[in-house]
Amino acid sequence: MTDASALDRPTTPAAATPTPTTPAPAILAGDRRALAKAITLIESSRPDHEAQAQALLADILPHTGRAIRVGLSGAPGVGKSSFIEAFGKFLIEAGLKVAVLAIDPSSTRSGGSILGDKTRMEQLSADPRAFIRPSPSGGSLGGVARRTREAMLLTEAAGYDVVLVETVGVGQSETAVADMVDMFVVLVSPGGGDELQGIKRGIMELADLVVVTKADGDLEPAAKRAQGEYRAGLHLMRPKTPGWTPHVLLTSSVSGRGLDNVWQQIGKHHDTLAASGELARLRRAQARAWMWTEIEDQLGRRFRAHPAVASRLAELEAAVTEGRMPPTAAAQALIAAFEPG
Amino acid sequence: MTDASALDRPTTPAAATPTPTTPAPAILAGDRRALAKAITLIESSRPDHEAQAQALLADILPHTGRAIRVGLSGAPGVGKSSFIEAFGKFLIEAGLKVAVLAIDPSSTRSGGSILGDKTRMEQLSADPRAFIRPSPSGGSLGGVARRTREAMLLTEAAGYDVVLVETVGVGQSETAVADMVDMFVVLVSPGGGDELQGIKRGIMELADLVVVTKADGDLEPAAKRAQGEYRAGLHLMRPKTPGWTPHVLLTSSVSGRGLDNVWQQIGKHHDTLAASGELARLRRAQARAWMWTEIEDQLGRRFRAHPAVASRLAELEAAVTEGRMPPTAAAQALIAAFEPG
Repeated sequence: MTDASALDRPTTPAAATPTPTTPAPAILAGDRRALAKAITLIESSRPDHEAQAQALLADILPHTGRAIRVGLSGAPGVGKSSFIEAFGKFLIEAGLKVAVLAIDPSSTRSGGSILGDKTRMEQLSADPRAFIRPSPSGGSLGGVARRTREAMLLTEAAGYDVVLVETVGVGQSETAVADMVDMFVVLVSPGGGDELQGIKRGIMELADLVVVTKADGDLEPAAKRAQGEYRAGLHLMRPKTPGWTPHVLLTSSVSGRGLDNVWQQIGKHHDTLAASGELARLRRAQARAWMWTEIEDQLGRRFRAHPAVASRLAELEAAVTEGRMPPTAAAQALIAAFEPG
Repeated sequence: MTDASALDRPTTPAAATPTPTTPAPAILAGDRRALAKAITLIESSRPDHEAQAQALLADILPHTGRAIRVGLSGAPGVGKSSFIEAFGKFLIEAGLKVAVLAIDPSSTRSGGSILGDKTRMEQLSADPRAFIRPSPSGGSLGGVARRTREAMLLTEAAGYDVVLVETVGVGQSETAVADMVDMFVVLVSPGGGDELQGIKRGIMELADLVVVTKADGDLEPAAKRAQGEYRAGLHLMRPKTPGWTPHVLLTSSVSGRGLDNVWQQIGKHHDTLAASGELARLRRAQARAWMWTEIEDQLGRRFRAHPAVASRLAELEAAVTEGRMPPTAAAQALIAAFEPG
């Protein structure tokens, strides 16, 4: 068991007293290197690191929750990096500190990898008011999402005003990101039906705001058409947030067009949720859901790793998929193997 | 443990030999009363009944899989009952045996209850070539869905050619139904934006076919408009099934308009999937997913019921939702309580 320390920790506010061993004070003071090292710590799967990470999170937890948490998603080629570069600079010039966290569970997918392009967001990465951190790719989505949630808390404690959680628009990462942020923004590029067809099913359902990129030069008419099509599509969906209707905005990372509108919509959405109490409710629900996701992940891992289960799993799964055994019977047999008596 | 018998059963085809105690032979002979009693058996939560149910399912399993499995969903007021009545009669007149299974996890929701209206599908229920069975409402969706899956297998073994699995378009039941059928049909009614807004988010993503009801009399123009709007909306979504584009059809349960087109599309979809091998792949994946859903449900129930977990759950969940404890730490503490050492 790796969680002995977690067990020993009191579950009362007293838990928030920094222990001498954690870098919490440096992070709270806005030390970028301490923040980067802390994220490396929470990304580690070494048992002793995991224990330290939980201690650190308990320490900084009281200092989290003040940032605006925005999820950003879009298919490869939509111009996500250029948008974040341009939008991040826009926010910095507005006097805000910006953190960008990237989830990329699909590193193997060509064109899909956030980490592949080293030169992306060059200017933003160089700016001291910005903090850019990609999650290690390749890990299980659950693991990547967990670390990103924790990294989000660390950046908040370090005083960043806006946390952009970026996900490449492939794989299953959108839902995970949408479940950890206040607002989910979907980037789409101009272009006809074929391109629209390429959008991952379900992603529009998550959108609180749709941003059409590349609305400049020759592509402007196509961008306007796309705006109309997405408006029509969103019309079919019940608003994700009661009292909030997702807009479809035209932007250009080249001319800077529409970046102010995007920020305006984000602020408006945040104010709407805060005023109605929905923001507090949402974050409580997210924390609770996060705990249960974590429990389900760990239960599943322990179940699969259990010797008695592992020894029968292949045989029973084959019997089920080949129609030789009812799924319920196989499930009962495996549960019994996991927890005899 | 209620699954001793499941454990003792061999997982080879030999398992399919009917035991004297199961009503399998009567069901295979098409005995409607035996079928109805068998469904009551699988719906029972009495341990001895559950064991008998698993034995029965193992017996009939080799005789399942021949029906076309169609999920039907639509919001209250869309005219679902009238459509099923008309469409069911259409199928019967075409010489087919039709089973209708209804999932309704939302019995408390006014207007949402499938079971509320005793007089629905009056003619169809009276026809010996039709079998109509609502799932008991109020149960957990997982439970309801599990029993409906098993009821679907029983009706197939009883020789029904088409199984319509109906879900009221509220709650979380659509995904559960879409995951157990070959094809998912969404019923929508004519009407403007407001009505469209009422459609449950995500449901259009599941549609292999969209049926606009009430395309008769004064509503015909509105039905045509709705058809156009849904076509536009579906245009934004990548087809659920590779090589299959969902159509939007106009129907009338009064005049019978379009019922033939619906059946034609269902048949075409089934042939497309069968020819590509997608149908076999889909059903193998469904059986496997069903097993894992069952495992997750049972693990979750056992976890919550575990004394050491139950005793700390409220306290830790409160600490998490109030931001006093990191969700990951609470999860680890509960996992450790569930499985010490």
